[in-house]
Amino acid sequence: MAEHDIRELEEELPREEDEQLDEENRLKPEFVDSVIEAVDEGDESRAYELVEPLHPADIADLLELLQPERRHMLAAAITDLMTAEVVSELNDYVRDDMIEALPPEAVAEIAEQLDTDDAVQLIEDLDPAEQRAILAEMEPEDRAAIENALSYPEETAGRLMQRELVAVPEHLTVGDLIDYLRDNDDLPTEFFEVFIVDHRHRPVGSCQLSWILRCPRHIALSDVMLRDQTLIPVDMDQEEVALRFQKYALISAAVVDEGGRLVGQLTVDDIVHIIQEEAGEDALLMSGAGEGDINEPIRDAYWARVRWLVANLGTALIASVIIATFDSAIAQLTALAILMPIVPSLGGNAGTQTMAVTVRAIATNQLTRSNTRRMLGREFRVALLNGATVAVVIGIGVAAVFTPMLGLVIAAAMIINILTAGLAGVAVPVLFDRVGQDPAVASSVFVTMITDSMGFFAFLGLAVASGMVA
Amino acid sequence: MAEHDIRELEEELPREEDEQLDEENRLKPEFVDSVIEAVDEGDESRAYELVEPLHPADIADLLELLQPERRHMLAAAITDLMTAEVVSELNDYVRDDMIEALPPEAVAEIAEQLDTDDAVQLIEDLDPAEQRAILAEMEPEDRAAIENALSYPEETAGRLMQRELVAVPEHLTVGDLIDYLRDNDDLPTEFFEVFIVDHRHRPVGSCQLSWILRCPRHIALSDVMLRDQTLIPVDMDQEEVALRFQKYALISAAVVDEGGRLVGQLTVDDIVHIIQEEAGEDALLMSGAGEGDINEPIRDAYWARVRWLVANLGTALIASVIIATFDSAIAQLTALAILMPIVPSLGGNAGTQTMAVTVRAIATNQLTRSNTRRMLGREFRVALLNGATVAVVIGIGVAAVFTPMLGLVIAAAMIINILTAGLAGVAVPVLFDRVGQDPAVASSVFVTMITDSMGFFAFLGLAVASGMVA
Repeated sequence: MAEHDIRELEEELPREEDEQLDEENRLKPEFVDSVIEAVDEGDESRAYELVEPLHPADIADLLELLQPERRHMLAAAITDLMTAEVVSELNDYVRDDMIEALPPEAVAEIAEQLDTDDAVQLIEDLDPAEQRAILAEMEPEDRAAIENALSYPEETAGRLMQRELVAVPEHLTVGDLIDYLRDNDDLPTEFFEVFIVDHRHRPVGSCQLSWILRCPRHIALSDVMLRDQTLIPVDMDQEEVALRFQKYALISAAVVDEGGRLVGQLTVDDIVHIIQEEAGEDALLMSGAGEGDINEPIRDAYWARVRWLVANLGTALIASVIIATFDSAIAQLTALAILMPIVPSLGGNAGTQTMAVTVRAIATNQLTRSNTRRMLGREFRVALLNGATVAVVIGIGVAAVFTPMLGLVIAAAMIINILTAGLAGVAVPVLFDRVGQDPAVASSVFVTMITDSMGFFAFLGLAVASGMVA
Repeated sequence: MAEHDIRELEEELPREEDEQLDEENRLKPEFVDSVIEAVDEGDESRAYELVEPLHPADIADLLELLQPERRHMLAAAITDLMTAEVVSELNDYVRDDMIEALPPEAVAEIAEQLDTDDAVQLIEDLDPAEQRAILAEMEPEDRAAIENALSYPEETAGRLMQRELVAVPEHLTVGDLIDYLRDNDDLPTEFFEVFIVDHRHRPVGSCQLSWILRCPRHIALSDVMLRDQTLIPVDMDQEEVALRFQKYALISAAVVDEGGRLVGQLTVDDIVHIIQEEAGEDALLMSGAGEGDINEPIRDAYWARVRWLVANLGTALIASVIIATFDSAIAQLTALAILMPIVPSLGGNAGTQTMAVTVRAIATNQLTRSNTRRMLGREFRVALLNGATVAVVIGIGVAAVFTPMLGLVIAAAMIINILTAGLAGVAVPVLFDRVGQDPAVASSVFVTMITDSMGFFAFLGLAVASGMVA
């Protein structure tokens, strides 16, 4: 018995101690290397044997880790492991790359195994001719569902939702519902709530499955259902949808069309990806790295980034023009040239700090018109403290190495620039948001432009005003 | 009938069109202003009337939007609306501020209404004396559950999990389980799966509620249960937990102790907050803004940020030392001073782009030792394209305004620095990750130090080497 128990425990805890995954649940490099070796040697059966025990999500990770050529070779070796789950877990770029390499019939076959939302994701980025070729290979019903989903704009609830759901009329009892679920073979495999609809298919309530299981059979659904459910309009933006799921801690939600009719459902496992993407993309957008996916083709990454570098070149030139107006002062006192990059550098850093906080607060709906003024006041005070601290440090240092007057000048310039950074760090993203632009996208360029210009201008201008140079 | 239908529809779609929320589901500033007015006038019944129709999550948002003094006044006016749901939705800082203002009995009363995980969150940041005072007011059973949770390190599964769950032995049938659920009053209100345990309370399988509802009563649970479930060790870090939930699209998961016994469950609605926080915090960490919560006390925000500003001051001084070694060259040709900030500025921007991509890829387990070399090669090529583009633009411009030789010098320095930025942007966060440090935290300082130093050195050094200055 004891021996049996131990064996059972070992069987039940494989993920923590298996050969393929490290302690952080990533594929071990040695394991990946052995797959690469098998692929390179053309040993398909060895490759299959290695990959076979993996979870679909790990097979997807493995394909992402390989170079494109090896990826295609491995996929060819493990065709029957390339299930719908694997395909739906693949990174967008990797999936598109692999789908383009398959014939339309094969793609159609994979798409038919998937829920509508995953099938849509599979083909939405392909060009229209390819989409048509794949759709032509599908069963009419699946095709209609996908075509309907594709008719909604990208990144809306209509694209994300599953059409598969359980909806019943309100006159049923708990017992009727259980019988319906037992008898009906055409239901989704997994669902978390049952929607109660009126005769026009408009949702009037919802029931968590746990309530249904805990109620006697004779209770009417209308007595246990929750009437005040969160309905998601079919054209709602996915970022908005993600915020609702978070705010109201939803597991699933009904999607309704303009007439209020139930057309689909969203479940939290699909929303989790959106939440992660939307929360993570701000760091990428603020740095000007575009989508910043490591599987993005090089030409896309180049184009996404070079635009911001050229914009940054423009702002750097503004700084150069400011410096140029002080060139005789610099020629007289090269200490100015030596010290002048410090002020804009610190200002840029302080501005980026405030901007990151502001962008995050806007994205999570924590910063609205009601508290913008309070936020500005708060950042002004933080900037005053930061500016004073940095000014004292640099002021004393410069006074000791150069002259006390130069120490005073750089300290004053530092306070001015860090205060400017604090205000710009709040104001720029807030203004972008008010005019309907994503505050994460262009704020950096403007904040840096402001802190660079102010940094050079304040330092060089104060130096001239102090009379230390002509 | 038609009239009835319309009224029903209006009742069911209130969230889209009510007076308190705007189209993005945020509280309208006018509504917030009217609450502030009522609070300022001391009109408690008016304040209550305004707040009463709100969802608990919106009451929490409203409290967050107010200044601390008004927040306390409003809370006093709406005591019986300050339910456990409201408290658990509050921002950490705002909650701590409000909890500290309440007597221990009142906090204990709120804590007893909450699930363990929310109750723990309520008191975990209080100082030990306050914690003890609150725990002393609680029922022994609730107190024991909270004390047990507090015994696990912060940010682990043990802190996040709920002890409330449904676990049954494996010999039951579907019908036995349904009877057990119907007869037992002591079960959690909401649950998404039932855990099947052996006689030592170790999980051997799990059943989604939808499977149970769809099976005939006589089927044995051991025939429908999923044996290969994801088990979460009680000491697993919350970031790791969040990645598992995403990777395997989990709705809930069993938490097990070192002996493999079931001690709690995690549900996705609690994990969603972690996913959002962990994904969003990278932008804040990279900018050196610490937690970057807009409700963080000013002294905490100051301390979090000023450290990085002082570190940045150190790296800016390194740049100054490099400039100082070229001061005679600058005195001879002030064009060098005018142009020199451009090269480090662009390098810093390019480095930040690559770093943001790298940090994101590490955080999502997309970048591992298996593909680091490929990533370096990729970023090198993107940097070469970016560097060449920017170098051509600035080179031609400088050649036209100053001299062709100076155009060549700045173009060459730009390519060198953007390539350096690309390599540093990958290497720095990867190295931090390898030595077990969070790559988002200190990478910025190091990447900026490298691109600043290389920028000034390459530009001024090439200028001297070209012979245009002595």
